[in-house]
Amino acid sequence: MSMPTPETNGTVAAPRPRKGGLEGIVAATTALSKVEGTEGRLIYRGYNIHDLARTTSFEEVAHLLWYGYLPNQAQLADLRAQLAQQRSLSPSVMHVLRDLPTHAEPMDVLRTVASAWGAGTITGKPTVEQAIALTARFPVFLAAFHRLRNKQEPLESRPELGHAANYLYLLTDNIPEQQHVQALDAYLVLLADHGMNASTFTARVVASTESDIVSATVAAVGALKGPLHGGAPSKVQDMLNAIGTVENAEPWIRHAITSGERLMGFGHRVYKTYDPRAEELRELARLADPQAFVLAHRVEELALTLLEEEKPGRRLYTNVEFYSAALLASVGLSGDLFTPTFAVSRVAGWTAHILEQIGNNRLIRPEADYTGPMSVPFVPVSKR
Amino acid sequence: MSMPTPETNGTVAAPRPRKGGLEGIVAATTALSKVEGTEGRLIYRGYNIHDLARTTSFEEVAHLLWYGYLPNQAQLADLRAQLAQQRSLSPSVMHVLRDLPTHAEPMDVLRTVASAWGAGTITGKPTVEQAIALTARFPVFLAAFHRLRNKQEPLESRPELGHAANYLYLLTDNIPEQQHVQALDAYLVLLADHGMNASTFTARVVASTESDIVSATVAAVGALKGPLHGGAPSKVQDMLNAIGTVENAEPWIRHAITSGERLMGFGHRVYKTYDPRAEELRELARLADPQAFVLAHRVEELALTLLEEEKPGRRLYTNVEFYSAALLASVGLSGDLFTPTFAVSRVAGWTAHILEQIGNNRLIRPEADYTGPMSVPFVPVSKR
Repeated sequence: MSMPTPETNGTVAAPRPRKGGLEGIVAATTALSKVEGTEGRLIYRGYNIHDLARTTSFEEVAHLLWYGYLPNQAQLADLRAQLAQQRSLSPSVMHVLRDLPTHAEPMDVLRTVASAWGAGTITGKPTVEQAIALTARFPVFLAAFHRLRNKQEPLESRPELGHAANYLYLLTDNIPEQQHVQALDAYLVLLADHGMNASTFTARVVASTESDIVSATVAAVGALKGPLHGGAPSKVQDMLNAIGTVENAEPWIRHAITSGERLMGFGHRVYKTYDPRAEELRELARLADPQAFVLAHRVEELALTLLEEEKPGRRLYTNVEFYSAALLASVGLSGDLFTPTFAVSRVAGWTAHILEQIGNNRLIRPEADYTGPMSVPFVPVSKR
Repeated sequence: MSMPTPETNGTVAAPRPRKGGLEGIVAATTALSKVEGTEGRLIYRGYNIHDLARTTSFEEVAHLLWYGYLPNQAQLADLRAQLAQQRSLSPSVMHVLRDLPTHAEPMDVLRTVASAWGAGTITGKPTVEQAIALTARFPVFLAAFHRLRNKQEPLESRPELGHAANYLYLLTDNIPEQQHVQALDAYLVLLADHGMNASTFTARVVASTESDIVSATVAAVGALKGPLHGGAPSKVQDMLNAIGTVENAEPWIRHAITSGERLMGFGHRVYKTYDPRAEELRELARLADPQAFVLAHRVEELALTLLEEEKPGRRLYTNVEFYSAALLASVGLSGDLFTPTFAVSRVAGWTAHILEQIGNNRLIRPEADYTGPMSVPFVPVSKR
């Protein structure tokens, strides 16, 4: 927010965020989730994330976000049936999947195939049926591409499997272990919504123009891809691999901090204490792979100690990416599927926010501080 | 911004926009363009839009936005050559185009094909070369789809033609009349940038996550599609067709206003006077098709008079969509290509804003006012 030009039109200068990036500015009201950064608290429609994490399925949480309440058994069965019905891919979408280069990044594939699915299919005002149809297909798009790039044919979904289990089945052609299903399901619950994060905000800005649900969701996928938002969990795994052993952890981390490298998986724009999702993910990662957990946990402890020592007062805590990486690796996902799997979860939140935005809409259109020149005399190209 | 919950965590409440929708809130600094809504003034990097409108080509203005200055003749020749080189479509992108249903909306096709082009091609930090490559391809994507849906084969671009002329050639298989080229070129100049509008803001939010240029641009396409932003110019043409004759104009408009229907092409979030682009477009539309202009101009005059009579003080003026429709129809475009052609112009501004955003980046992440319940006791599904 540097160097605003003098206001020349006699109006009052617009209010300016304190630090740029709209930090501290309220962009919308929402009844979907609340992030209390100083207390490390996250709630979805009044439910504490710790209550939901290992007691509800992703489908229940998606129902909570879309409809406003947790489903009873009949409502849950109905939603599961609707999701299962929407797991198909049309020949046209399957052709697009086959056309994309096998070396493409899965986030780019998700962005493209979701967009292709919407073209010619989805029009008009966003509906909860469209939210269900899109959320049902995210794992199907990703697993089909993952199979194709490994020279394997995509599989048909199994209607008897839940959302998390079917995703693992489509990736591997094996009915997954119950322990893996539970870990992935809890991950999907934990990541489903998180206040006005950058991808959710993107979805709401697009929806506020009265564009369609696919346009808004595809935009959010593009925002989640960025490493300052959802795009870095695989780098945590790369860091743990580079450290390699518990003995190597302290010299490696100390060297990284003093040479100004960024430690992956620490620090968050909003949380100034332990991220409640990281707490849950830590325990899930411990259950899923106790052996790999030893190194991750030692790195976390050392990193927190050394960051406080070297950067006192910065309040850099473990963020959601740190144990996401360990958990997703333990259920068998490759690193480049970590961020797309974040999208498999967050699409429930995005679509709920889109529906909320259009329920009481006003075009989201901020202003800019113009810092360029005010009046440059024009010279035609023949005289330049 | 209704019903904020009481602050429970002892922090100071975040500042709230006066009317919602981030109205009056500065989201970023920019040296690209300035919109002075009360004075009806628009400048691109210090140049008044009236100076640029009929004296510069789209390529010159794109150069101005990307590099910061108008090109001399050698620089302009170089940029034209680069754009001409980037007009090709790979077999993979052509396959995706052929896979999409012919009844798809062209904006959905543009969103999908731009995304497919990026998948496997574009990675890393946005560059001006990528901006050129993407801008060069927008008309090629659209014209190829338009040919395919009319059961015609897409054409090869002609390197000797400029950006506007080549677009018309690709659509029609005819070297276009000079008058049409000039009208379209002026349109592309007028629409290329416009401060922190919703699609440009979307592109900057996505870019602020350090995502790639295609993700940010595809997101912007989705925002432009919305009828509250770029998605309504064809409805102006529908309205003029419904009115039909000069004699029918007054009773039609009076009935529309008193029965609460929205007149298409009037009112703007920022301009509270005549939009300077509409002024230029009006003259261009008059030159391009003097006969069609008679009805459009009569409708405009009546609408402004009757809107002031029926809704005094609302300051509803002719917006950019009103004469865009007339101009684009006069150069031979079908109604569903109006908004995509807006994107053919605005992609220059989007990509310039993306480059500016990452040049001095901070993640754009506002806050939300949570209006839901704070603490709901959890009941497991078996007891619901």
